Amino acid sequence: MEHRLNPRLVASPRSAIREFARLAAETPGCISLTLGEPDFPTPPPVCAAVQESLDRGETHYIPNNGSPALCRAIAAFEAEAHGLTYGPDEVIVTVGATEGLFTALTGMLEPGDEVIVPTPAFVLYQCIVGLAGGGFVPVDTAKTGFQLSEAQLRAAVTAKTKAIVLNSPNNPTGCVLNAESLAAVAQIAREFDLFVICDEVYRQLCYTPEIPQFSTRYPDLKDRTIVVQSFSKPYAMTGWRVGYLLADGPVKRQLEKLHQYDVVSTVSFLQEACVTALRQDPTPMVEVYRRRRDFALARLSEIGLPVVRPEGAFYIFPDITAFGLSSADFCRRMIQEAKVAAVPGFCFGAEGHIRLSYCCDDAVLAEGLARLGRFVDQLREEGR
Amino acid sequence: MEHRLNPRLVASPRSAIREFARLAAETPGCISLTLGEPDFPTPPPVCAAVQESLDRGETHYIPNNGSPALCRAIAAFEAEAHGLTYGPDEVIVTVGATEGLFTALTGMLEPGDEVIVPTPAFVLYQCIVGLAGGGFVPVDTAKTGFQLSEAQLRAAVTAKTKAIVLNSPNNPTGCVLNAESLAAVAQIAREFDLFVICDEVYRQLCYTPEIPQFSTRYPDLKDRTIVVQSFSKPYAMTGWRVGYLLADGPVKRQLEKLHQYDVVSTVSFLQEACVTALRQDPTPMVEVYRRRRDFALARLSEIGLPVVRPEGAFYIFPDITAFGLSSADFCRRMIQEAKVAAVPGFCFGAEGHIRLSYCCDDAVLAEGLARLGRFVDQLREEGR
Repeated sequence: MEHRLNPRLVASPRSAIREFARLAAETPGCISLTLGEPDFPTPPPVCAAVQESLDRGETHYIPNNGSPALCRAIAAFEAEAHGLTYGPDEVIVTVGATEGLFTALTGMLEPGDEVIVPTPAFVLYQCIVGLAGGGFVPVDTAKTGFQLSEAQLRAAVTAKTKAIVLNSPNNPTGCVLNAESLAAVAQIAREFDLFVICDEVYRQLCYTPEIPQFSTRYPDLKDRTIVVQSFSKPYAMTGWRVGYLLADGPVKRQLEKLHQYDVVSTVSFLQEACVTALRQDPTPMVEVYRRRRDFALARLSEIGLPVVRPEGAFYIFPDITAFGLSSADFCRRMIQEAKVAAVPGFCFGAEGHIRLSYCCDDAVLAEGLARLGRFVDQLREEGR
Repeated sequence: MEHRLNPRLVASPRSAIREFARLAAETPGCISLTLGEPDFPTPPPVCAAVQESLDRGETHYIPNNGSPALCRAIAAFEAEAHGLTYGPDEVIVTVGATEGLFTALTGMLEPGDEVIVPTPAFVLYQCIVGLAGGGFVPVDTAKTGFQLSEAQLRAAVTAKTKAIVLNSPNNPTGCVLNAESLAAVAQIAREFDLFVICDEVYRQLCYTPEIPQFSTRYPDLKDRTIVVQSFSKPYAMTGWRVGYLLADGPVKRQLEKLHQYDVVSTVSFLQEACVTALRQDPTPMVEVYRRRRDFALARLSEIGLPVVRPEGAFYIFPDITAFGLSSADFCRRMIQEAKVAAVPGFCFGAEGHIRLSYCCDDAVLAEGLARLGRFVDQLREEGR
């Protein structure tokens, strides 16, 4: 009966990231640098709060947008940590950032509407836009150091454009959009009456003190800004499936209907644990990632792979164009011949790159990069 | 910026059920018979399994469709309890039945497609169909004892029809579709190449031993049948937001993409708890509901309100047409004048009825029905 399903769904691609992770898992002795989740456990006080909620019998329905206490805690946290001015009634607690992105995009797109996404980018944006019948308009930043210009955006915008999606720090590059890139987005969003969806899930994993963020920098554009955030990355809570969406009142009051029809709410007895999570300090974890980032940068430099220095997240995105292989072929051969796995750039709309994740033990990272080095040497030998 | 949102979302109604529940909560001394969730706590062994999962560090990503152990347990449970032949790879663990319904309907509907829904019905179906750009085609069963005929369905079907949604036992009537109703659905689904979505969330809350269920009765239509199920009602787990969807392999392999783009997965450390839930025996809870159902039926008969005997769920849906009031006016006046709240039938597309829930303490139910009785007497006095 698949012939009777929505053709947009049938045409939707599957995640190739998971395919390469699987290939790595099925190859004996292979080291995987494909993973996009912290290798830390969730902090014990956050886990303990779950049991306390269960002991209080918090197993019944809660308000659709999340418990009032969690919505208040999120609004207060975002005000204090990032200077954002969203009230508790401008928060929707979502099933991870994914449901937040799904709700924001599905809630605004009519068939034919276009969404501008700077690439390389997480594949999810394209999948959701496609399902909603929208047009995905990539703006390639690979040749501009992963930064945006107003001219690039102006060339991409049409009468059908409805939104720009920003992801800074970025998956897969780890790069952060600079002030000029954000100014270009603000200018175009204002001029063409666009939404700006800020996927800020790596915001707290940053290695420089002052990261310019669109949502903080342009409070006057709050009416058209939608912030999507997650507990997954800063607090090592990927399996918890909790995140949140911040939007100006009138927009939030529409989006909450979609959230309600889709999932009703997040889990009742995780609400207090998420309040506890917001009180955790991710600094020690960030310092570990920073050390690994520095190590990976140094090793890639020795290996001789060009790379733009990441300032956040836990990814690094070296350039492999010198070897004349597609990113998929490069990664497939590297798994088979060198027993180390990365995610090919094509998964993010960026050929000529591979994504390495450093969410892993230091020793594993060192051995993985050593194998990458030998594989690259071997390719150079072949090329002579 | 709401002018730039999807007009289908902006046009979507809000749940009027929650509005009447709120009105009741804001009226001092008011007894609410509006609630659609068990008044029991989640069984302790199910809660204990959460802590065990957390102790094992199960806070990381799991497969999109749910843990392999839970998918196997669901397949085995459905085979043993209901004779269904879905393999573990034909299961998607969803964020409650709601996400299952959202995934099934959004995954099949193209704009203009129609969905036939016997009414009275849960308002969610209409909301999801509308969001997907589909046409909601109600088939009124209020005059046929809440049963369906082939003639009724044939009159509703068009070239654009894509699915029929069944909800048996039904919210709000508590009634169960009989064998003739199901045969009519099977005939029309076969003839017009339709999906049949079986919302079976009240399946385990039944008061007769042999409930005919579409999914069990028509295994030859498995390719076009999608079963949506929830842990919420049989195991008192409404706040947990876990359910599942069963679909024939080729259909499931498409729907799982939508599930992945929407929510990624359900919560990692609830998987084993749900395996434990499937081992719980809901019989003692069902016996309590049966006793309350019998009590409510007897009282409504004394009060003189016509009602079709419910065989499942925890709702009863008396007829109030005799009083010449809209169901909303009836319920609003009853809250104000008699301090007892019900949900008006219009919320389910069925004027001339009110929904009473017996998910409450016996004494509360008795007092609520006594107040309903006095309110009805008062209306009769006025009518003279």
